[in-house]
Amino acid sequence: LSTEHEPLPPARPGPDMSPDEFRRYGHQVVDWIAEFLAHPERHRVLPAVRPGEVSAALPASPPAEGEAMDGILRDFEDVIVPGLTQWNHPGFLAYFANTASGPGILGEMLTAAVNNNAMLWRTGPSATELEDRALDWMRQMMGLPDAFRGTIQDTASISTLVAVCAAREATGLQIRDEGLGGRGLPRLRMYCSEEAHSSVERAGIVAGIGRAGTRTIPTDAEFRMDPAALERAIAEDAAAGWKPFCVVATVGTTSTTSIDPVPAIADVCERHGLWLHVDAAYGGAAAVVPEMRGVLEGCERADTLVVNPHKWLFVPMDLSALYARDPQAIRRAFSLVPAYLHTAEGASVTNLMDYGPALGKRFRALKLWMTLRYFGARGFASRIREHLRLARDFAAWIDADPAWERMAPVPFSLVLYRHRPAGVASEAALDAHNERLMDAVNATGEVFVSHTRVRGRFALRLAIGNLRTDEATIRRAWQILREAAAGLG
Amino acid sequence: LSTEHEPLPPARPGPDMSPDEFRRYGHQVVDWIAEFLAHPERHRVLPAVRPGEVSAALPASPPAEGEAMDGILRDFEDVIVPGLTQWNHPGFLAYFANTASGPGILGEMLTAAVNNNAMLWRTGPSATELEDRALDWMRQMMGLPDAFRGTIQDTASISTLVAVCAAREATGLQIRDEGLGGRGLPRLRMYCSEEAHSSVERAGIVAGIGRAGTRTIPTDAEFRMDPAALERAIAEDAAAGWKPFCVVATVGTTSTTSIDPVPAIADVCERHGLWLHVDAAYGGAAAVVPEMRGVLEGCERADTLVVNPHKWLFVPMDLSALYARDPQAIRRAFSLVPAYLHTAEGASVTNLMDYGPALGKRFRALKLWMTLRYFGARGFASRIREHLRLARDFAAWIDADPAWERMAPVPFSLVLYRHRPAGVASEAALDAHNERLMDAVNATGEVFVSHTRVRGRFALRLAIGNLRTDEATIRRAWQILREAAAGLG
Repeated sequence: LSTEHEPLPPARPGPDMSPDEFRRYGHQVVDWIAEFLAHPERHRVLPAVRPGEVSAALPASPPAEGEAMDGILRDFEDVIVPGLTQWNHPGFLAYFANTASGPGILGEMLTAAVNNNAMLWRTGPSATELEDRALDWMRQMMGLPDAFRGTIQDTASISTLVAVCAAREATGLQIRDEGLGGRGLPRLRMYCSEEAHSSVERAGIVAGIGRAGTRTIPTDAEFRMDPAALERAIAEDAAAGWKPFCVVATVGTTSTTSIDPVPAIADVCERHGLWLHVDAAYGGAAAVVPEMRGVLEGCERADTLVVNPHKWLFVPMDLSALYARDPQAIRRAFSLVPAYLHTAEGASVTNLMDYGPALGKRFRALKLWMTLRYFGARGFASRIREHLRLARDFAAWIDADPAWERMAPVPFSLVLYRHRPAGVASEAALDAHNERLMDAVNATGEVFVSHTRVRGRFALRLAIGNLRTDEATIRRAWQILREAAAGLG
Repeated sequence: LSTEHEPLPPARPGPDMSPDEFRRYGHQVVDWIAEFLAHPERHRVLPAVRPGEVSAALPASPPAEGEAMDGILRDFEDVIVPGLTQWNHPGFLAYFANTASGPGILGEMLTAAVNNNAMLWRTGPSATELEDRALDWMRQMMGLPDAFRGTIQDTASISTLVAVCAAREATGLQIRDEGLGGRGLPRLRMYCSEEAHSSVERAGIVAGIGRAGTRTIPTDAEFRMDPAALERAIAEDAAAGWKPFCVVATVGTTSTTSIDPVPAIADVCERHGLWLHVDAAYGGAAAVVPEMRGVLEGCERADTLVVNPHKWLFVPMDLSALYARDPQAIRRAFSLVPAYLHTAEGASVTNLMDYGPALGKRFRALKLWMTLRYFGARGFASRIREHLRLARDFAAWIDADPAWERMAPVPFSLVLYRHRPAGVASEAALDAHNERLMDAVNATGEVFVSHTRVRGRFALRLAIGNLRTDEATIRRAWQILREAAAGLG
């Protein structure tokens, strides 16, 4: 970070950095961020560091005396930045690409400064009420039912864990009070497709039903859960003594962004009295585009639904929104109020600590509210529509070139594909070839693509989700891919 | 926020806010934060809003079109700020007071901008390696064993949940794979003192052992777990068919900051083969003061230990550090690697997604590293030492005044006390009197104190943990308390 002044010594022996010192370095950091946003080309998307290299540049022991901020910021630039994978870069096309937008970063700055812990309404009235309001705005933008109420969790993994705990409690088996074990209860089982995210299985592990407590259901040719197979599995399990309790449907699976047939799954849940949780962590965002609203068809019948503003709604990490048709079902699964947290407001207000596994609650709603206002509903729709268009264009280029093969449909902004040169015959050789291709592309530092396995086959991912990714980025990525493929011979 | 220029329109139809626009509003926000830090007296600590008031000032629907940042920041000041409980205020003396220090806020700004999701080493080499290094610095500052390795979780509740899941897995009962229920396993039970934090019981609920799976152990006159009673409870439970698996000892309980006798508890755990988790979320920070290191006596024998830099180490919400003697025990409880997250580095590197319930991982280590460097080990020690001195002084004032009564020892920076006027005789009347007193004090807006129950009796808390809380703050708080008491007649 540029230094045009004499370094200030650290606060010593005064309490905190002085407001004047904060102002000086705050301006420097803002200027650094503005440059960082203006010149992504100065940074490799996937860094060139080897494991242990960053560590080796950091002293083994903490400094005994405080250090000046100039040196700390210099080390940030010299040691930390070269080892950052640049998620907030237009060339980031891996996993699910996301964005820390300008208004979102400004929101994080204010959140850090006011440092609210909104565990109780009393400890954060604005944080509590803004969370409710901002999530209701999002709900309207996605066309979800009026009755749905949202709370903010940190990640979709935790949102899904919360949903699973609520579903577990909704069995009426008194699991919150008495636990799962040693009571002669049947084993609980939940269902998701074989394409569902690992966070579903992980939620089952944490919640004590174990990996065996999650059964995966086969998918059709387009990677969508087969509702008939789901129904058969439930019947089979019930006959074998299991207690089915929950189905997790996905709108936008991680591997292929397939969309499970939620209406048919909701029918199954209704017939068998099962909790329906929808993982729309990535795909839900697309519903803010009016002509895409159909992706959430059937979700109005869900008990809970998660969508992540930090994925495709331009909000910095982390912020996951969990909607519930009956928020009291979540409260019943979690609420515990020790004496030191009783307040005069009591049950007349929402105390956010009652709605998840954590007591402490960061003021995450601020960045969401600022981002929603800055772009507006139509602004979100036009930007996401553009991402969808770019993905369709890229898919069309793949389809038009006989040396390339598309590996899955493109319902959203992710394209799965592989290079299929004439000389490479076996599937195993194709896998190895495409893995080498991925490494060659990523070695350029200009773009970063990741991979998955589709029905066992290695497939490259091109994921569009960063606000500053534009047509030029995607054209350049296509060029790099073809050049790298040619280079592999 | 002051506006000395023509408002800029929002990004329309361009992708994100432009770097120039970010620079302009970033400087404005930094200036606002500097003023906010310079003039805490301009803000009520506990706001004067009533439930629903903030909500009512917010439109019911999201804006269709994007809005200019000027108006958004103006609403932040006019609508959000008046409803903030000011945690980052020197007069915040409630719960456990904390600090978003200057270097910590600067760290949050950079974290937001680079927006790393360090789920894998590959997706955040610097974030992964800095997390390990910064937590090792903290370990050294607290005098914990070399073998302890830390990971960052968001809150102590989640750190304790992770510890409980690791302990559950360490039973060897294959709970991660097969779950707790319907297998003829005995019911699991863990132990903590009756003064332990509600997060222990909540972790048990989430992990599926239920509230019944946590047994609370009586405490001595100084609110410390009775190890003999612990041992009797374990024996009793084992005889009754329970499977004891974990003990949670606390260094600095939430209600009274008592310190459980960890060495004796470690002996019990050793004899019975139980996992020892230490909740030092608040108290652990004191160990950075050399003459206070004894508070962690026996903790070198813990399996896991949590300490929260966002509590008393001047780091903004949220950041909880979970140390483990054998990090692989945590990994065994959580790790799941789907195809789309396989990387070439494989198991040769740390992938942070393997060490907790969440996959997504914010770059929290940066603010910790910047804060540790800015203050240095001695800087932390001198500031925490001053907080300890202020608490002792306040306790001495309480002790010296016959109209006031201290309700618990003061091992750290929290003082429990109540007003005991001559005319109020019954305990119930004293409770009501002190609750009114608390409300009167908080109504001033100058300081914010909270309460707890000590052996059933209402006690006021004075918690010192904000960097800018100084002797003048505490003297003023004492004056306000006495004036409010006099005003109640």
